[in-house]
Amino acid sequence: MSKFWSPLVASLEPYVAGEQPAIPDLIKLNTNENPWGPSPRVLDAIRTAATDDLRLYPDPSATRLRQTLATYHGVSPDQVFVGNGSDEVLAFLFAGLLKHDAPLLYPDITYSFYPTYSRLFDINTRIIPLSDDFRIRPEDYAGPCGAIILPNPNAPTGIGLPLADISQLASTHADQVVAIDEAYVDFGGETAIPLVATHENVIVIRTFSKSRSLAGLRIGYAIAQRPLIEALEQMKDSFNSYPLDRLAQVAAIASIEDEAWFSSHRDRLIAIREDLTAKLEARGFEVLPSQANFVFARKPGFEGKTLATALRQRAVIVRHFARPRISDFLRITIGSEAECARLIAALDAIFESAN
Amino acid sequence: MSKFWSPLVASLEPYVAGEQPAIPDLIKLNTNENPWGPSPRVLDAIRTAATDDLRLYPDPSATRLRQTLATYHGVSPDQVFVGNGSDEVLAFLFAGLLKHDAPLLYPDITYSFYPTYSRLFDINTRIIPLSDDFRIRPEDYAGPCGAIILPNPNAPTGIGLPLADISQLASTHADQVVAIDEAYVDFGGETAIPLVATHENVIVIRTFSKSRSLAGLRIGYAIAQRPLIEALEQMKDSFNSYPLDRLAQVAAIASIEDEAWFSSHRDRLIAIREDLTAKLEARGFEVLPSQANFVFARKPGFEGKTLATALRQRAVIVRHFARPRISDFLRITIGSEAECARLIAALDAIFESAN
Repeated sequence: MSKFWSPLVASLEPYVAGEQPAIPDLIKLNTNENPWGPSPRVLDAIRTAATDDLRLYPDPSATRLRQTLATYHGVSPDQVFVGNGSDEVLAFLFAGLLKHDAPLLYPDITYSFYPTYSRLFDINTRIIPLSDDFRIRPEDYAGPCGAIILPNPNAPTGIGLPLADISQLASTHADQVVAIDEAYVDFGGETAIPLVATHENVIVIRTFSKSRSLAGLRIGYAIAQRPLIEALEQMKDSFNSYPLDRLAQVAAIASIEDEAWFSSHRDRLIAIREDLTAKLEARGFEVLPSQANFVFARKPGFEGKTLATALRQRAVIVRHFARPRISDFLRITIGSEAECARLIAALDAIFESAN
Repeated sequence: MSKFWSPLVASLEPYVAGEQPAIPDLIKLNTNENPWGPSPRVLDAIRTAATDDLRLYPDPSATRLRQTLATYHGVSPDQVFVGNGSDEVLAFLFAGLLKHDAPLLYPDITYSFYPTYSRLFDINTRIIPLSDDFRIRPEDYAGPCGAIILPNPNAPTGIGLPLADISQLASTHADQVVAIDEAYVDFGGETAIPLVATHENVIVIRTFSKSRSLAGLRIGYAIAQRPLIEALEQMKDSFNSYPLDRLAQVAAIASIEDEAWFSSHRDRLIAIREDLTAKLEARGFEVLPSQANFVFARKPGFEGKTLATALRQRAVIVRHFARPRISDFLRITIGSEAECARLIAALDAIFESAN
């Protein structure tokens, strides 16, 4: 603690991102990145935009991108907000829409940035435990609150919540914001975007980092009715008027415009996930039912940390959370067919040497 | 005010950026962008980095970029913090280092984002008027305070403060952060970076948007001793772990590595500024002595707003601030030789029709 720090700094609990190590021939299955690059049209759009125009500020409203997203999702452009990764969108959401006298509700096992934002903005929270089988039970969110945020599918479990449950939750809490963080929804979840038309309290947050293979460019967005979007706009314009740069804007537009590339790679990833799940189960793993681009799995008799360390020694990196209830689990990103084969081979070698 | 808003939202006073209009054949001298594009090496670096690797998160610590900046400025890499434009760096600075019980001091006429940040983070401020000739007088900043922030050169005046004055201020306020916002320093100001070695309270903020022609990519940084940088890191990791994308990181490195391009274009811009200043003075303008890539000028007998409107009708856009003390001034970005000639021609036409 330095005398120069604002009192806030000492109270923070910064988020710890998955590591980005530089190990040769590494199988990197720890940060839920996509195994394939973005659409070739995205790369073309970036190259085309690498001109002297970079001397000019980007469109602060990202008008063309918001129009593209609006058309894609069947909403109006002024119902779309974009930001520098869904993390920035979430930050504005927490500060501008989830902070109230009554507590914000979210699950005990969820995206670990939520407690960090809550600290940063001094938000009163009530943490709702998942069920014993790691599911979000909507009935646990009944009763008074200031707002609710849920990832759907949840992370790191990968388990999705049916749209009917979210709809019910939004109706029960008509006077509170119900935020649905759909970072992983493209891999098999049911989106809540249709609820935006009928529920003024629903806001959906999305990212280009996972299903659109653009983690390296930092693009996220939110969809909601005007009053909620307006709060995010006011936050943005009080923080950084131009969060999304010129290259990110054109890349995101090109990504949305190549639906064929998007859907074929999404389908391929889902097929690999199902195959990997079967192979893990055949090796005695309990695998939670995943609608995401990762699986959350544990093998009875093996500590999660031990297994993660053994995999790392074989140049396969997965994510392990040293946290209550889930410390025996590994979160394994779905890689390419070859990467998943390497993972399985590494596990087989570990189990063989353990016998 | 929506029932869904956090109380904070209603209290905000969002920053209003200069407009980015789409007028054909426009001479755009309103947002201090560079008239020339970035180094060709920057464009090459972006094209080279437009690969499948965009599927991967960027290095959250921007290690290579911080090393490059550290070497360039003669500091160590852990004394460098980078962010999504200097606006984001400033936001973390205000929240993490400039908020104290005692008031933050800054000039009445300065970068208009400062009051916005102060609102956003609920910072107690004391606004110090510039002198009658629009100068920062260091003696006005004596006495107790929580922190100080000054742009050097100041905006929108363009007037610089000598390093000796900043050094003195930093020594007098050894227990308070003294932040120097050097967005425009490359155009003739004296940098305070050498003070960082001897003053634990000094932090310098820089941007790639002006002298490095990369407003479109959003890259800013700060240089200070570890405790100050650490506060910014904690803020960042509580807000967005990956604010600077892959393309911005490689572009920034390439920019720093092309010193010849940088210095020749900076020199050319300064020469245009001096020429434009002489031409404006020859037409009866009072032009404040500028060390920036803009001039702040007024013509006795002409209202600033009227003149800005008349210029706009001739497709020349400059910035006018409808604020006390400076409402008669125009802030004119230094464009290319041809753009400045168009400005002068437009002014001559306006004055001719006024006679």
